[in-house]
Amino acid sequence: GGRFCASEHQHARYNPLRDDWVLVSAHRVKRPWQGQLEKPPPEDVPRWDPNNPLCPGATRANGEVNPQYEGTFVFPNDFPALQPDAPEPGDSDHPLFRAAAARGVCKVMCFHPWSDLTLPLMSLAEIRAVIDAWAELAAELGASYPWVQIFENKGAMMGCSNPHPHCQVWASSFLPNEARLEDRTQRQHLNQHGVPMLLEYAEQEARRKERVVVENADWLVVVPYWATWPYQTLLLPRRHVCRLQDLHEGERDSLASVMKRLLIKYDNLFEVSFPYSMGWHGAPTGPYLGEDCGHWQLHAHYYPPLLRSATVRKFMVGYEMLAQAQRDLTPEQAAERLRSLPEVHYKQRAE
Amino acid sequence: GGRFCASEHQHARYNPLRDDWVLVSAHRVKRPWQGQLEKPPPEDVPRWDPNNPLCPGATRANGEVNPQYEGTFVFPNDFPALQPDAPEPGDSDHPLFRAAAARGVCKVMCFHPWSDLTLPLMSLAEIRAVIDAWAELAAELGASYPWVQIFENKGAMMGCSNPHPHCQVWASSFLPNEARLEDRTQRQHLNQHGVPMLLEYAEQEARRKERVVVENADWLVVVPYWATWPYQTLLLPRRHVCRLQDLHEGERDSLASVMKRLLIKYDNLFEVSFPYSMGWHGAPTGPYLGEDCGHWQLHAHYYPPLLRSATVRKFMVGYEMLAQAQRDLTPEQAAERLRSLPEVHYKQRAE
Ligand SMILES: O=P(O)(O)O[C@H]1O[C@H](CO)[C@@H](O)[C@H](O)[C@H]1O
Ligand SMILES: O=P(O)(O)O[C@H]1O[C@H](CO)[C@@H](O)[C@H](O)[C@H]1O
Repeated sequence: GGRFCASEHQHARYNPLRDDWVLVSAHRVKRPWQGQLEKPPPEDVPRWDPNNPLCPGATRANGEVNPQYEGTFVFPNDFPALQPDAPEPGDSDHPLFRAAAARGVCKVMCFHPWSDLTLPLMSLAEIRAVIDAWAELAAELGASYPWVQIFENKGAMMGCSNPHPHCQVWASSFLPNEARLEDRTQRQHLNQHGVPMLLEYAEQEARRKERVVVENADWLVVVPYWATWPYQTLLLPRRHVCRLQDLHEGERDSLASVMKRLLIKYDNLFEVSFPYSMGWHGAPTGPYLGEDCGHWQLHAHYYPPLLRSATVRKFMVGYEMLAQAQRDLTPEQAAERLRSLPEVHYKQRAE
Repeated sequence: GGRFCASEHQHARYNPLRDDWVLVSAHRVKRPWQGQLEKPPPEDVPRWDPNNPLCPGATRANGEVNPQYEGTFVFPNDFPALQPDAPEPGDSDHPLFRAAAARGVCKVMCFHPWSDLTLPLMSLAEIRAVIDAWAELAAELGASYPWVQIFENKGAMMGCSNPHPHCQVWASSFLPNEARLEDRTQRQHLNQHGVPMLLEYAEQEARRKERVVVENADWLVVVPYWATWPYQTLLLPRRHVCRLQDLHEGERDSLASVMKRLLIKYDNLFEVSFPYSMGWHGAPTGPYLGEDCGHWQLHAHYYPPLLRSATVRKFMVGYEMLAQAQRDLTPEQAAERLRSLPEVHYKQRAE
C-alpha cells in the first residue's frame, strides 16, 4: 500500500517502439547473488598479433592477406550468415510451415589497426572516421538492400570472439523482425500524433532530464523510460534524420563526441571495458528509398548486460524468455548513476 | 544458385506462434569458435547442504526454517519481482510515458529433497509428483491471477543461482508479452482455419516425422520448424488441452515419461547436465476462466543455449537483438541428432 514510488513499487512500463512491456521491480536488486560470475576481459591484448585475422598484414581464413591499413578497414565476413545468391525455398505446402528467401551480404569493419584499443579510448578524429565508414557502407549496401544492420558485439560476454575493435554489417533482402516492428509502431505514431515518435520522445526527455545520460546540441542519450537491460541507452538526434548517411558534417563530429562521452561513462561504471551489443536503426533502404519514410527517426540502441559489477550480469532467462522482460533497477536510477560518472576514462586519469 | 537445400542454403522461417521470423544459416556452423567458453556445471554438488536455503531443514533469507520435506516443496520467493500489494502508478501524462500496475506472487518449488539430482535422473513417480504440484499451483494461483508462469532456469549459464533442482512460479495481475502474443496468434489461427493452431501443428509434425524427438500416445516433442535456439523443443499434447490442471491421470504419467526421455537425450547430447530455460504456456486464468479459450493449446517451450559442445553456446546478441534471430543448424538436423541419442542417461549406463 501507500503512495506509489517507482524505485520501491513494481510496475510495468510500455515500450512504444516495440509495442511491449517491461516489468520494473527495483527492490529486486537487494537480493544476494550466488550465481555465475563473468570473467573480466583480458587486460593484456597485444597491439598487433600476426595470428589475429583482424590485424593489418594478417592472413584471413580464406587465405587473403589484410593490407597494412591505418584507419578503418572493411572486408567480407569469411563465415557469412547471408550470401547474395542462395536459391529460393520452394512454395510452402502448409501455412504452419512457411519459408522465405533470405539473401544478403555480411561485412566486418575494423575500427582501428590496433587490437588493444576500444572506441572510448580512440580520438574524436578516429571515431569520426568510423562514423563516416558506417555512413558510407549504409549508403553503398542500402542502394540495393532493404535493410543494412550495423552492429557491434563488444566483449566475450556478448559473443564477441575477437578483441580487435570491430563491428559487423549485415545487409538483407528482407526487413528483419525488429525493423518491421519499429516500422509499424513509428508509422502508427506519426499517423496518430502527426510527429515522428522518436523526435517527440527526444524533446520530451530533453525537457524531463531525469533519464538523460549525455547530450549536446545535436544528440541526446537517454536510458529509455522502457529500458530492459540495466544500463540500456538510446542515442537520438535532436533533428529529424532518417538515415546515417543523411548526417551533416557537424552532426558527425558531435556524434563522435557524444559516443565517446557515453562509452567512457560505460567503462567507468564498473572500471572495466564495458560489454554490450549496439546497433543502428534507420529508415529502410533499397526499394524503400523511393517511399515516404517520414515516420522513421535514426537511432542507436545500446544493450549492455552488466548489472551489479564487472562480473555480475543480468540474465534474461526463464521469466523473461517465457513471459516478459524484468529489470532490477529503475531507468531513472541507471541514468542518474551514469550521469554522475566522470567523463575522463579511468585508464587515462591522472593520479 | 542450384536446387534449394535447407541445410546448405540460408532462408527465413516463419514462427506462427510469435508472428516473427528466424534466419536459418546452417552453413555457419562450419566457422571456427575462438570466443567465450562456458564453465561446465559442478560435478560435486553435496546431496544436502545446511547452508543451501533450498535444502530440507535449512534456514532461508527471511529466517524461516524449511521442513524436512520428502517430495516437492513450495515456498514464497524471498526476493519476489511481483508482490500482491504494490500501489498503482499514477495516470500517465503522455502517451510515450505509460506505466501500469503490476501485482502478483512469486513462488519457488523444489523438485526433490536432494541437491545432486536433476529431473532426468529422478524416477517417473518423482517427476509425476512435480507435474501434480505444477497443476495444483496453476489451479490455485490461477483462481485469481490471469497468468501463472511456471518456469525452470537450469544451469548457471541460464542465470540459475542454486544447483538444487527447482523451478519458479510467478503469477501476475496482467498478461505478459509472450502470453498476449500467443493469445493473439492462436485466436487468429482458430478464426481462420477452424482448428487450434498447435493441435493442427502436432498432427502435421506427427505425420511429417522429421522434427520429432520423442513421442508417446499422449505427447509429442519436436524441434519446431521455426526454432531459434539450436536444440529448442516444443512439448505438445496430442489432445486439445487448455491448461496443465486439465490433464488426466494417464496424461500426467505419460508426460512424466516423455519429459524424462527428452531430458535424458538433452543430457546425453554433450554428456553434461544440459542447461535450459523451460516453461509452460496455457490458456489464461483468473477473469479469463469464464471466457472461451478454445484457441489455446497447452505447451511447454524448452530453450537450451548450447550449440557445439558442453562449453560452446549460441549467443543471441548483436544481429539477433537488433534485427532477427539467426540459427546455425537446421531444426531437422537438431531433431535428427537428438532422436538418435540413447534413452539411457550417460551417468547410468552400464559399462
Ligand atoms: O530468481 P533467480 O533465479 O535468482 O533469477 C533468475 O531468474 C529470473 C527469472 O527468470 C531472472 O529475472 C534473473 O535475471 C535470473 O538470474
Ligand atoms: O559473427 P560472430 O561475431 O562470430 O558471432 C557473434 O555475432 C553473431 C551476430 O550477432 C551471432 O549470430 C553469434 O551467435 C555471435 O557469436
